[in-house]
Amino acid sequence: MKLLEQLIDIASPSGSEYHMRDFLVKYVKDHQSDWKVAPKILYGDELQDNLILVFGDPRTAIFAHMDTIGFTVRYQDQLVPIGGPDAETGYELVGKDAMGFVDCTLRVDDENQLFYDFPRAIATGTTLTWKPTLKLDGEYIEGPYMDNRLGIYNALKVAESLEHGVIVFSSFEEHGGGSVPLLVQYLAQHYPAVRQALISDITWVTEGVRHGEGVAISMRDRNIPRRKFLDRVLDLAAQSGIAYQLEVEGGGSSDGREVHHSPYPIDWLFIGAPEDQVHSPKERVHMKDLIAMISMYKYLMERL
Amino acid sequence: MKLLEQLIDIASPSGSEYHMRDFLVKYVKDHQSDWKVAPKILYGDELQDNLILVFGDPRTAIFAHMDTIGFTVRYQDQLVPIGGPDAETGYELVGKDAMGFVDCTLRVDDENQLFYDFPRAIATGTTLTWKPTLKLDGEYIEGPYMDNRLGIYNALKVAESLEHGVIVFSSFEEHGGGSVPLLVQYLAQHYPAVRQALISDITWVTEGVRHGEGVAISMRDRNIPRRKFLDRVLDLAAQSGIAYQLEVEGGGSSDGREVHHSPYPIDWLFIGAPEDQVHSPKERVHMKDLIAMISMYKYLMERL
Amino acid sequence: MKLLEQLIDIASPSGSEYHMRDFLVKYVKDHQSDWKVAPKILYGDELQDNLILVFGDPRTAIFAHMDTIGFTVRYQDQLVPIGGPDAETGYELVGKDAMGFVDCTLRVDDENQLFYDFPRAIATGTTLTWKPTLKLDGEYIEGPYMDNRLGIYNALKVAESLEHGVIVFSSFEEHGGGSVPLLVQYLAQHYPAVRQALISDITWVTEGVRHGEGVAISMRDRNIPRRKFLDRVLDLAAQSGIAYQLEVEGGGSSDGREVHHSPYPIDWLFIGAPEDQVHSPKERVHMKDLIAMISMYKYLMERL
Repeated sequence: MKLLEQLIDIASPSGSEYHMRDFLVKYVKDHQSDWKVAPKILYGDELQDNLILVFGDPRTAIFAHMDTIGFTVRYQDQLVPIGGPDAETGYELVGKDAMGFVDCTLRVDDENQLFYDFPRAIATGTTLTWKPTLKLDGEYIEGPYMDNRLGIYNALKVAESLEHGVIVFSSFEEHGGGSVPLLVQYLAQHYPAVRQALISDITWVTEGVRHGEGVAISMRDRNIPRRKFLDRVLDLAAQSGIAYQLEVEGGGSSDGREVHHSPYPIDWLFIGAPEDQVHSPKERVHMKDLIAMISMYKYLMERL
Repeated sequence: MKLLEQLIDIASPSGSEYHMRDFLVKYVKDHQSDWKVAPKILYGDELQDNLILVFGDPRTAIFAHMDTIGFTVRYQDQLVPIGGPDAETGYELVGKDAMGFVDCTLRVDDENQLFYDFPRAIATGTTLTWKPTLKLDGEYIEGPYMDNRLGIYNALKVAESLEHGVIVFSSFEEHGGGSVPLLVQYLAQHYPAVRQALISDITWVTEGVRHGEGVAISMRDRNIPRRKFLDRVLDLAAQSGIAYQLEVEGGGSSDGREVHHSPYPIDWLFIGAPEDQVHSPKERVHMKDLIAMISMYKYLMERL
Repeated sequence: MKLLEQLIDIASPSGSEYHMRDFLVKYVKDHQSDWKVAPKILYGDELQDNLILVFGDPRTAIFAHMDTIGFTVRYQDQLVPIGGPDAETGYELVGKDAMGFVDCTLRVDDENQLFYDFPRAIATGTTLTWKPTLKLDGEYIEGPYMDNRLGIYNALKVAESLEHGVIVFSSFEEHGGGSVPLLVQYLAQHYPAVRQALISDITWVTEGVRHGEGVAISMRDRNIPRRKFLDRVLDLAAQSGIAYQLEVEGGGSSDGREVHHSPYPIDWLFIGAPEDQVHSPKERVHMKDLIAMISMYKYLMERL
């Protein structure tokens, strides 16, 4: 879990994903010699802050978003949310401005306005994120940003044995989207055989999706994937012997939304472990579900 | 009206449009020998579940969406809407899961949560649609999915005598969109002379748009078409002698929205007969308005 | 300020931008001989109602939207808004239909429904805009459509000495967007070196952004620009010696939103003078802020 700890220590709220991108580039360069296939590592101005790894002759892409929710300092002691944080008075936030490191406390007033408590003023525009911390009790992993450090973790674990496939590390998923159109177009132009996308992200524990009962395969959320692709993946999942749960939601969204709306014929499906205490600093995922997620991705990436 | 009955009998909620696509491919192949021009029939993986018919040297495309509203079975007896159905307790729904056919009843509770009543559990993820039925009384057509079976019907009637034009059968119009970006890009790349789109869909009876007073030409809805194109179509409509009504709305949307937002210089306009009892199983359209719709499309497709 | 008066006199609500486009084409043709560099003037069907000016070897584009908020006549005396006008009973509106010019009065009822008062019926679909008027008191400019006539004005002033850059005059910014995808794709295909966009538009006076304290540089609104580009611009702004203010908002949007969501790696930032009485017929901007805006654009266009 050292890798997961490292991922959680890096602040990369929407807009500042380059911190995570830089870490991942270094990680891949350091570890690829132990992997079954050394991927092409694609990044740079053409891809903004995103990162693409290409293995063999890919047909399917894994999308894992690098950004997290957080807060932007407005004027005085005001905060504006990045994405949809579960804001509660007393949560600890960290950041950095020209005057140095910041370790402050979140305050929510009666009208749900957000503020920070800190001995000095923090510079306007500074971004703050949940203070890193990770608890493991053998059964659960608990900490900030399970969404989507675990999605990244999953992708890196799958990468170890991946022969054919693309791994896309994307930006701005938590706040307004906007990186996937670029990434999908890049794939369509350079790897037109990639016609399938699996969204490696974390979903919610609900009355139908429970801790410890396997990775969730989302049959729909705010968007509806094509039934033909869904049925194909469900057939494979049933054959896999890996623990999984079916999810059906009317709301919620992911990078899948933008794959869906792109002008390219690429199917998508969200597959991820569930968490509770969503978007709080103590998101919690069952270890079994994470293991099932990794196994399911390995199984599907070989067969799709 | 046998064709309309056939169209209504096919379940194709958003995500499962391939059922309707397959019917239309067969229908076109069976009937094109009677048409003035036999179109190119374009479909397949490159176009996902969509279908394009190309006649002669096209300048204008007709868009008719193949999907309908409906419901997805969630957990236990819960339902999640597909699109925006007009849900009322007692409406009959049909579908199919691994255990066989389903003919159940919709139930809406005090909090507007949706449920089904059926002797057995229906599999999670199963889609349900209004039970097909069609009433004709010489004046009105009444049944589920006038929106957009009549839009498809219109396109197929226009097809009979169409010399130059494209007919696009699209997906996901009722739920989140996402097929038109692909379709418009395909047209722009293969038929760049196509710079105009007419949206063949059904609109609402309102205080300004009434049953039996002709096809509605929408001057705007949530989106505003370019005035120059609008004025050109209105000039032609005035010359046509065909009954039409002007519609101005602040809300509502159609495939036109996505043509508008595409990166290609394609104008669009919504032209369609009005219905009342919108998105219920008893949508109702005046026969005169449907006839005016078909006439207007024929007139415009020749002259635009 | 004669130019600004001319700009305000032209009615170009969303959908009818071609009026402003025609004026600008003529203006550029008449004045370019006095400019440092004569630009390529790009317009026509391929660009719908938009206009692009290309100077030298461009790396950065200025986006200034040509459309304004307004109203569409619905049925009887009803109005539907174009964009988000600040509607108040008594405001004067002007327009034109087949029966001639219209100079009517806005009426807002208790349920916020909109109506016009005029001796005769105005044709359905007619567009109405704030009655032009311009007040200058040496300190403030006040009138309708400071947003975005001042953004256009800024672009034309910058044009006078611009050596390398693109100026894009866009459509539909106030109502639903949809022209920027086309414009960005055009730039990406014809001027791929253009990787930066400055949004020349007007923002709001708030508790953190005040009249007379300089041009506002928006660190974020509903969308979040890439931090790396933001930091680069802020460094330049700090060096410039020009008066500017930092803005941080959770809401609000601009053409930047669509640059952000485009499939091309183009960075964006909103930089504009603030106004109060937003979207009313008496939008008010401090002269100092407009001057700072022009100076900042000139400074940045040379150095970015």
